[in-house]
Amino acid sequence: MQNIKKIAVVGSGLVGSLLAIYLRKAGHQVHVYDRSPDIRKIQFSGRSINLAMSNRGWKALDAVEIGDVIREIAIPMDKRAIHLVDKLNFQNYGQEGESIYSISRGILNRKMIDLAEAAGAEFFFEQKIWDVSLDDATLHSGETERGAWEDKKYDLVFGADGAFSRIRHRMQRQSMFDYSQEFLPIGYKELNIPANADGTHKLDKNSFHIWPRGEYMLIALPNLDGSFTCTLFMPFEGENSFQSLNDIPSVEAFFEKNLPDTIDVIPKLTEDFFNNPTSTLVTMKCFPWTYKDKVALIGDASHAIVPFYGQGMNAGFEDITVLYEMMEKYGDDWKTVFSEYEKSRKPNADAIAELSYRNFLEMSSKTADENFLLQKKIEKLFSDKYPEKWIPLYSRVTFSDRPYAEALAIGDYQNEIMEKVLKMDNINQIWDSVEVENKILELLK
Amino acid sequence: MQNIKKIAVVGSGLVGSLLAIYLRKAGHQVHVYDRSPDIRKIQFSGRSINLAMSNRGWKALDAVEIGDVIREIAIPMDKRAIHLVDKLNFQNYGQEGESIYSISRGILNRKMIDLAEAAGAEFFFEQKIWDVSLDDATLHSGETERGAWEDKKYDLVFGADGAFSRIRHRMQRQSMFDYSQEFLPIGYKELNIPANADGTHKLDKNSFHIWPRGEYMLIALPNLDGSFTCTLFMPFEGENSFQSLNDIPSVEAFFEKNLPDTIDVIPKLTEDFFNNPTSTLVTMKCFPWTYKDKVALIGDASHAIVPFYGQGMNAGFEDITVLYEMMEKYGDDWKTVFSEYEKSRKPNADAIAELSYRNFLEMSSKTADENFLLQKKIEKLFSDKYPEKWIPLYSRVTFSDRPYAEALAIGDYQNEIMEKVLKMDNINQIWDSVEVENKILELLK
Repeated sequence: MQNIKKIAVVGSGLVGSLLAIYLRKAGHQVHVYDRSPDIRKIQFSGRSINLAMSNRGWKALDAVEIGDVIREIAIPMDKRAIHLVDKLNFQNYGQEGESIYSISRGILNRKMIDLAEAAGAEFFFEQKIWDVSLDDATLHSGETERGAWEDKKYDLVFGADGAFSRIRHRMQRQSMFDYSQEFLPIGYKELNIPANADGTHKLDKNSFHIWPRGEYMLIALPNLDGSFTCTLFMPFEGENSFQSLNDIPSVEAFFEKNLPDTIDVIPKLTEDFFNNPTSTLVTMKCFPWTYKDKVALIGDASHAIVPFYGQGMNAGFEDITVLYEMMEKYGDDWKTVFSEYEKSRKPNADAIAELSYRNFLEMSSKTADENFLLQKKIEKLFSDKYPEKWIPLYSRVTFSDRPYAEALAIGDYQNEIMEKVLKMDNINQIWDSVEVENKILELLK
Repeated sequence: MQNIKKIAVVGSGLVGSLLAIYLRKAGHQVHVYDRSPDIRKIQFSGRSINLAMSNRGWKALDAVEIGDVIREIAIPMDKRAIHLVDKLNFQNYGQEGESIYSISRGILNRKMIDLAEAAGAEFFFEQKIWDVSLDDATLHSGETERGAWEDKKYDLVFGADGAFSRIRHRMQRQSMFDYSQEFLPIGYKELNIPANADGTHKLDKNSFHIWPRGEYMLIALPNLDGSFTCTLFMPFEGENSFQSLNDIPSVEAFFEKNLPDTIDVIPKLTEDFFNNPTSTLVTMKCFPWTYKDKVALIGDASHAIVPFYGQGMNAGFEDITVLYEMMEKYGDDWKTVFSEYEKSRKPNADAIAELSYRNFLEMSSKTADENFLLQKKIEKLFSDKYPEKWIPLYSRVTFSDRPYAEALAIGDYQNEIMEKVLKMDNINQIWDSVEVENKILELLK
């Protein structure tokens, strides 16, 4: 039988609260700390990107039987709605019946905390954890970093405290701790498309809306109340940038010229634009993720990624799936649980970081690249005809629970094949011919 | 005329003390802080690697007319002495008259502090700087990190406080600060070859001695007193590792078997092996290096590299050369001085980090690679015949003051050429033929 442990989870975000539910399921005593007030009692911040829950996320929720409750606050999106300046195209995400699900981060987080409390986890809000003593799993909290601190001793501590984790901050100061943080030169800003007067959605409800424009783009994800949460991704500096859009006329002119079909649906454009903060995008990698049998990092605290694959939360939830597998396998041997957990997850976290960064590059530079578009057309044609021979990378990442690292490796292999295909004579003319199809079949052997 | 500034330099190492001399030359008031005791009053630590001063280092010293004083404590090394298990080979570093110079880190550091004090800089030892307020260039010092702090206000602060810089630590916590630290899986340990009874050197004095053994290696650099400072680089774990050499018999057996010609010259082998610490090797990169016109990082604090190109100190001294160029160009406009300094140095710091890391890979894996050795032979032959057409990468880095980034780019270009040459039919037989020579000449066009 497993020993009951006294466990602290630092961070009451999505990963922290789901982890609390899993730890309670395993019978442990669980305290969750957060420096912020209870999100159930405050207004949302105006700086979030809506979530796109996909297979890995659902798998982690279903395993503790809360998937169905969360499905009630999720809206399926089976396609991209691509808003070009002069037309609107639709593109299915996967096969018939495959969807990703839009969920408001705030609404989901509130629900998850309710569920964790119902499972018996105790939450402590407005508790600032400044430091941790790794060897005895003791948290140090207090009003200010330099003021008096109180010690809270646990058997185990989980750092689920996000990209700027204080728990990791302490681990970083050890020797042999690899660490990197890299910011993108683009930021993001939340905007809003309100519901119609009758509560219906102003745009197609079951689409992930995207206005791709090369170096910048706008996306919109549906909310339950008929509104859409929009996110504008844009360089900080340069011609089309947050810096250049510095007054009401320039924002209005920019949207009228480049995003004309948004004018009617974003009524509070300039108000939101100047009230909402411009947030940064960071990729953070580190290793190790754990310290002896005492402390472990999880979610964004161990691998913060850019949001362009919609996998941040899904990857964090999958961390929990794998951690729990190791708990079931190694029981009370937490040192082994932790080391097998980090060994299993690190290559996959690196893979989804790489895939997410590549998607940023694709969206910002390759959408205008003729070769790239041709490649996508050929892949689509072949994949539709031979679905078992060519699962697109997006589907491997989104509609599967096979390791991210495998998806990346197979994706690279598929790219090598397509590189050869694109070098065929007259490929522009013959791209949809039997000759090309046979060439791919041959290369796949 | 330039305004006199009150400037703090954090760190009294080689870069900190040379920077102090330059800032005094420009007429500023200079305070240098160090958390350690005055190195002139204590014994050395037994954890240093001897320095190899080359062109970039001498240039920075000569510009403030202290090169000749330092040359008195330097020993020229014009060649590698390569100790194979059964024979000894010599390999010149460059052309006739080109040498790198062995200097004991401790002796150089003491001398540099003397010179900086003579130039009017004030040194404050055993002063722990825990934090800095970036906006007003104020240092915070105290006995302990959590105890009472004293504020020291300056006009400018330089962080010359090494790879684990506290000044950078504060900058790191800003948004948009890119940062990475990556440890090698190998460590190093200092050993010692004492002088003969008559004060002469036991091995050739004017050689950089190296015992290359693939995954591990030993080096020895001459000291003025007739001794050599040796450094053993070796994996932490695995077959031949610090972990596996865990008692006196295993160390003795290992040296007898693999480094037989060192047995007679390292009398206190096991004593030093178990008394001296095993140190780590880290590559640290970050950006930006400066904050407004207030704070700047320099030397290892902005770019810590692994020691396998012998360029760590040289790169740090070159930072000062470039900083001073910018001071002369932009005078009192410190914001521009700082931004032009970091813009100029960052790509070169990245380049020497890359080159140093590649040298580690070369030494640990490629020394046994037949193709690699053949490439080196072909390059050497060609370079000897056409010295103006093919300056080897090592010379570009070591005997030149052209930018590191240029050396890296030309080195990559040379590698591309050699890749094609190595693909020639029968290259193993014809490597020293006119045919190969002509092929290189053609590819260089």
